[in-house]
Amino acid sequence: MSFNFDIKKKSNESSARLGKISINGVEINTPVFMPVGTQATVKSLTPDMIHETESKIILANTYHLVLRPGLETIKAMGGVKKFSNFNGAMLTDSGGFQVFSLAKLRKIRDEGVEFRSHIDGAKLFFTPKFVMEAQHIIGADFIMCFDECAPHDASYTYVKDSIKKTHKWALECKNYHDSQENSNYQYLGGIIQGGMHDDLRRESASVLQDMNFPFYSIGGLSVGETPQKMHEVLSNMMKHVVDDKPRYLMGVGEPRDILNGVMEGIDMFDCVMPTRNARNGKLFTMNGAVRIRNSKHKKDDSPIEVGCDCYTCKNFSRAYLHHLDKAKELLFYTLSSIHNVRFMQRFMVALQKSIEEDRFLKFRSDILDIFYDKN
Amino acid sequence: MSFNFDIKKKSNESSARLGKISINGVEINTPVFMPVGTQATVKSLTPDMIHETESKIILANTYHLVLRPGLETIKAMGGVKKFSNFNGAMLTDSGGFQVFSLAKLRKIRDEGVEFRSHIDGAKLFFTPKFVMEAQHIIGADFIMCFDECAPHDASYTYVKDSIKKTHKWALECKNYHDSQENSNYQYLGGIIQGGMHDDLRRESASVLQDMNFPFYSIGGLSVGETPQKMHEVLSNMMKHVVDDKPRYLMGVGEPRDILNGVMEGIDMFDCVMPTRNARNGKLFTMNGAVRIRNSKHKKDDSPIEVGCDCYTCKNFSRAYLHHLDKAKELLFYTLSSIHNVRFMQRFMVALQKSIEEDRFLKFRSDILDIFYDKN
Repeated sequence: MSFNFDIKKKSNESSARLGKISINGVEINTPVFMPVGTQATVKSLTPDMIHETESKIILANTYHLVLRPGLETIKAMGGVKKFSNFNGAMLTDSGGFQVFSLAKLRKIRDEGVEFRSHIDGAKLFFTPKFVMEAQHIIGADFIMCFDECAPHDASYTYVKDSIKKTHKWALECKNYHDSQENSNYQYLGGIIQGGMHDDLRRESASVLQDMNFPFYSIGGLSVGETPQKMHEVLSNMMKHVVDDKPRYLMGVGEPRDILNGVMEGIDMFDCVMPTRNARNGKLFTMNGAVRIRNSKHKKDDSPIEVGCDCYTCKNFSRAYLHHLDKAKELLFYTLSSIHNVRFMQRFMVALQKSIEEDRFLKFRSDILDIFYDKN
Repeated sequence: MSFNFDIKKKSNESSARLGKISINGVEINTPVFMPVGTQATVKSLTPDMIHETESKIILANTYHLVLRPGLETIKAMGGVKKFSNFNGAMLTDSGGFQVFSLAKLRKIRDEGVEFRSHIDGAKLFFTPKFVMEAQHIIGADFIMCFDECAPHDASYTYVKDSIKKTHKWALECKNYHDSQENSNYQYLGGIIQGGMHDDLRRESASVLQDMNFPFYSIGGLSVGETPQKMHEVLSNMMKHVVDDKPRYLMGVGEPRDILNGVMEGIDMFDCVMPTRNARNGKLFTMNGAVRIRNSKHKKDDSPIEVGCDCYTCKNFSRAYLHHLDKAKELLFYTLSSIHNVRFMQRFMVALQKSIEEDRFLKFRSDILDIFYDKN
């Protein structure tokens, strides 16, 4: 088992780059989009369908899996990949984000976070060591340090204090992980925090890089700030992040934010957006979003997107999808999710091609025009 | 386009028979089970998944399709098979059953039934001619006459009066259908009614058979009576039904009722039971039902049924299905429905084999023991 990252090309126009991650036998072209399978399932899709969208790596959420089905079950079933029969690559987050966004009555201490499950109110205590043990049992290829994800409007003083904990926890995670056999086939990433404060971001990057992680993620963005603010923070911090390792922007998947992230040198993205939007009837095309619930699609026999190679577009009309959505038929969620996830992968391939052909900035502004001005 | 029915073998032990329906290029071994795709979709399954279960023919509901998406849309999309991209055979019911079970404020007249949609309260009037026009637009291979489906406890006088309407409507349906070009590729079945009253059942069979339909269905059973009563009514009536044409027992799909129906010479069955039970976590095996919600499956790495060749059993454990069900994940409904529909088709093949090998009665009593005594 092994992990390798090659940068194949650096853009002349921006910090965008093309790369290849090789992780435990799976090859992944970057920049890459990772669909999210929170509860050990990308909602409404079979593993076969995920493969057909050409998604090579997906994400699962440690917080959710610890709560349900629980580590005992996942351990008994040989890890989450075997459990869910997914044979691509997988990444788990650390649960930090969910502890701060979903859990009830949390109490942050230096040793970890005490909280109550949002499902049944059960009392839990996440420490760096527990989060490592959990991710070792879950068994994804990429795993993450436990971190505190501060709100986007957190004060300088709060964030300054918060990153101290995040850094202390990162070191504890790393030391524990490195002492375990799992470190031979699971690769632990450090999470850079620092809120919207440029010097704290720089400090966080510097402290974590001294610990020498195999890849780095940027946490604490896409938490309520404007897209402009997110881009500004990234732009100011990314030159301080080592450039020979994969850089992962957590929880980001809106095309605009992906384009801005890539422009600043991000290699990996994940987001529930394509599947959540799909279930809500917002379907993506290279010409912008289609709101399938709109009655103008009632008798439209064209596919969601002409030329799209997904199962849904090859077999079904907008009229049929409009009907399934209106009738709240379960098949709608599957067909719409197939399309949106496949769209994201087609979008990433087009984006990669634009870097290859030195026209990324043009690609970016074209997409921004189509997606955010016309609509 | 064509329709043919061959009886390949008559059981020595009972009225069970093996046959083959050839309908517009699709070959169907009988006795056959038809999954139900009420709203132009077998709930949660793609057409590819339906084919993988080896279901050659499915059912759609005229009443539901008239209400939503409506005939205008279906006409514009070239019929329901093209609309839903299903290329097997299809049968539509006449809407009679739903008008009497789902619609609000219905008013039965000699010319038809006035009622309000259960979805939006819209006023509709189903006449025999309208129901034929609707089914011509929907375009299934097999279509049905408009009928009144009386409640199981309807009095003798009520049912006697009711079958008069059903017979009058059947003749109107037949005359209209025969006058249309559609009769070259859509085949209209007569529905025998008569409630729980043997002489009215005989009368209904006789009147309809004089009209010479290409196949006959038995309506008004599985409407609340006991399984024993259903079997008794069937047993008393089936000797009066012509035996060289397919006989279809509407809305029946519980294994016990299928076994009893086959024993009395039924060739075709349909029911929402396998998919509805699947969504509720009741999964079928040749050893009886598995309640996947039961916590004993939490860490069970065996498939729903050892030896089952469905996608679900080949790829997923009971533990994973238990988790998906508990987490109310959409993928559960798909995976459980795949299994239950495939189970029904495996069950029908095993049943056919038992007729072939002159051991149907033994097969029947074994299944009844396993399914209804042990459980």
